[in-house]
Amino acid sequence: MNAAVLPNDLAPYMRQLGERARAAATLMAAASTAAKNQALLALARRLREAGPALQAANERDLQAASGLDAPMLDRLKLAPKVLATVAEGCEQIAAMPDPIGEISGVKRRPSGISVGQMRVPLGVFGMIYESRPNVTIEAASLAIKSGNACILRGGSEALHSNLALAALVAAALQEAGLPADGVQLVNTTDRAAVGLLIAMPEYVDVIIPRGGKGLIERISREARVPVIKHLDGNCHSYVDAEVDLELALKVVDNAKTQKYSPCNATESLLVHSKQAGAFLPRIAAIFAAKGVEMRGCLRTLALLPGAKPATEADWSEEYLAPIISVKVVDSLDEAIAHINRYGSHHTDAILTTNHPNAMRFLREVDSASVMVNASTRFADGFEYGLGAEIGISTDKFHARGPVGLEGLTSMKWLVLGQGEVRQ
Amino acid sequence: MNAAVLPNDLAPYMRQLGERARAAATLMAAASTAAKNQALLALARRLREAGPALQAANERDLQAASGLDAPMLDRLKLAPKVLATVAEGCEQIAAMPDPIGEISGVKRRPSGISVGQMRVPLGVFGMIYESRPNVTIEAASLAIKSGNACILRGGSEALHSNLALAALVAAALQEAGLPADGVQLVNTTDRAAVGLLIAMPEYVDVIIPRGGKGLIERISREARVPVIKHLDGNCHSYVDAEVDLELALKVVDNAKTQKYSPCNATESLLVHSKQAGAFLPRIAAIFAAKGVEMRGCLRTLALLPGAKPATEADWSEEYLAPIISVKVVDSLDEAIAHINRYGSHHTDAILTTNHPNAMRFLREVDSASVMVNASTRFADGFEYGLGAEIGISTDKFHARGPVGLEGLTSMKWLVLGQGEVRQ
Repeated sequence: MNAAVLPNDLAPYMRQLGERARAAATLMAAASTAAKNQALLALARRLREAGPALQAANERDLQAASGLDAPMLDRLKLAPKVLATVAEGCEQIAAMPDPIGEISGVKRRPSGISVGQMRVPLGVFGMIYESRPNVTIEAASLAIKSGNACILRGGSEALHSNLALAALVAAALQEAGLPADGVQLVNTTDRAAVGLLIAMPEYVDVIIPRGGKGLIERISREARVPVIKHLDGNCHSYVDAEVDLELALKVVDNAKTQKYSPCNATESLLVHSKQAGAFLPRIAAIFAAKGVEMRGCLRTLALLPGAKPATEADWSEEYLAPIISVKVVDSLDEAIAHINRYGSHHTDAILTTNHPNAMRFLREVDSASVMVNASTRFADGFEYGLGAEIGISTDKFHARGPVGLEGLTSMKWLVLGQGEVRQ
Repeated sequence: MNAAVLPNDLAPYMRQLGERARAAATLMAAASTAAKNQALLALARRLREAGPALQAANERDLQAASGLDAPMLDRLKLAPKVLATVAEGCEQIAAMPDPIGEISGVKRRPSGISVGQMRVPLGVFGMIYESRPNVTIEAASLAIKSGNACILRGGSEALHSNLALAALVAAALQEAGLPADGVQLVNTTDRAAVGLLIAMPEYVDVIIPRGGKGLIERISREARVPVIKHLDGNCHSYVDAEVDLELALKVVDNAKTQKYSPCNATESLLVHSKQAGAFLPRIAAIFAAKGVEMRGCLRTLALLPGAKPATEADWSEEYLAPIISVKVVDSLDEAIAHINRYGSHHTDAILTTNHPNAMRFLREVDSASVMVNASTRFADGFEYGLGAEIGISTDKFHARGPVGLEGLTSMKWLVLGQGEVRQ
């Protein structure tokens, strides 16, 4: 464990992390699949065997943070169950196919050369996250498998836990013959470290922030490198004019109430006017039984006297709570326009039996995930079969939606010749 | 043709362009392949028929620019041959498959949902380029086919030519039932327009700059949206220890001398010490006959007394001229390390008959294009079969190397269900 960094030394310290990461990235990129998997399995074993030293570090963080609220302390605690889960995660990532080195699309050209693409790591990613020590291991394991180096900046309250975990990662990397600097942790609680980390394009290729919207907006504004960012999830479920009502009730209920806090929970319900009379009273009964507050447009209020009136602000709101906004629309066009205007381009679903409407919704709703007859809650790297998830992107550039190992890679061009020259 | 914009009105003017582009982008994204191709063919026809009005606008620019140097005037001139070429380019893009709407990788998941991806436009791109009116048509035609809207900011000296061309584009779009605002030109020579264009994330999704390195660096530094940027091309050809000497002579000659100005011309030659004695005197004779100056390391100078000594700065130099730096290396490792350190991650080639060395070079050289036994001059969207090229990216994020229509798109996730809910 290094000594704490003094403010005057911060800039050189961050540059040093950057230089080490850049040097390690070359070795990580060239690492064999076997070595990367060995490091992941060694990390899983070391997490299971860590015992008292890790618990002592975590205890130190928990005592210093004792004034914080219960959910935050809960996320900070490295309970045995949390450790078992992250260790299992490492083993699952070891079992996944190696994304690096995949060669695709090789085609012969009229000139005689063959042209294709090879998947390679991005290089170095920086991750900025809250006081959740499990994210340290998740980020480290994704970095190892994808052949990237990374610099991790976790929340201040978790510093000692993170340092203890980072030591396990370093030991696992060395055990597999990989560079310990492949995964580095920023060893300071100085907030200025974040500003420096996001402004070193010579050392860091991409920044992945996790946390509140304010933090992510600030990082996006100030970063001098690309950011894979996840802003809010204002997701819609739209009940079309032609619909299986029972299916729609089941799916909308699940999309809203299966869990209120995730970003892929439905926050806004749109109902075609032809179905509003049949659908709204029945979903209202389900929501009432679960204590979900409905905030409706005027036509909704006419059908549901118990609902509250929605304000203009409600259409843009990500509640993350048992509240849902409800609007009656007269056409698919109106639904699509509403979603593209007020939504957050995260995940939106149509409930319909009409094929052309399903296809138009898929094409024209400008969101990272578009769904037909399924719960918005499915928008998730594991549910999509990515095997792991470093984040969910609400951007269109590079990776969109759930980001797995492939989101940490890029494709370079290969040219295979036999002495061809340009005419 | 609009009136010029006064400085005080510039910010609202740029916002208005942004709002119009955002509105047009929705219609462009939903446009049928037939409508997009109709617009492209109409544009080709209108370019061929444009005649005196277009020539008068171009003549106005040429007269105002008469003090400029000959190559610049040459690029500014809309000669009949240039117009024929850009018209043909529009027809070629019309003949290409539509990238939008492609659905791929749809797989059933254990939950019952099917998950896949659909290719969609990025939205709105901004393009900033020099006084080359042909780029106006190239950018417009790529925007139309890829279903994006765009805002074009060409060099000041070409403003009247560009306005005349933009009017043809608008008419072609309307002829096909597409929004005239799908392609807009910034109608002012005020340089502050560039600063505004790159800082409107609410209206512009990506910026593509073309021009000098200084301009591109400034745009990258100040942009508030992603930039597909092309910095320099310091390309290497490496002659390995095991090599077909005749093939290597032919390819290295072509890579350096076929044309000196393109970014994919070889600027630095690395030769394994086992081949230096055989290879260097022969390539030196070829270069001497063509007037190519060689700047060598000490070991090169010992073999080629006529060469000039290379300085440290030479290893990083993009000459774009009949000059080449030459270094003798003792191993493939040294060659790869040199390229990754001094190169610009653009295009690098190995000349070898050794298969493991070829594969290591492909994997470990961290460049957008890596080649075996072929001239670096092949790094080009047309040679790669992309059909068109909006630029060459020296970044790793999103698109790498030559960027065609697909670089202007992203993949969104599709979920096709039958009423599945999350457990």
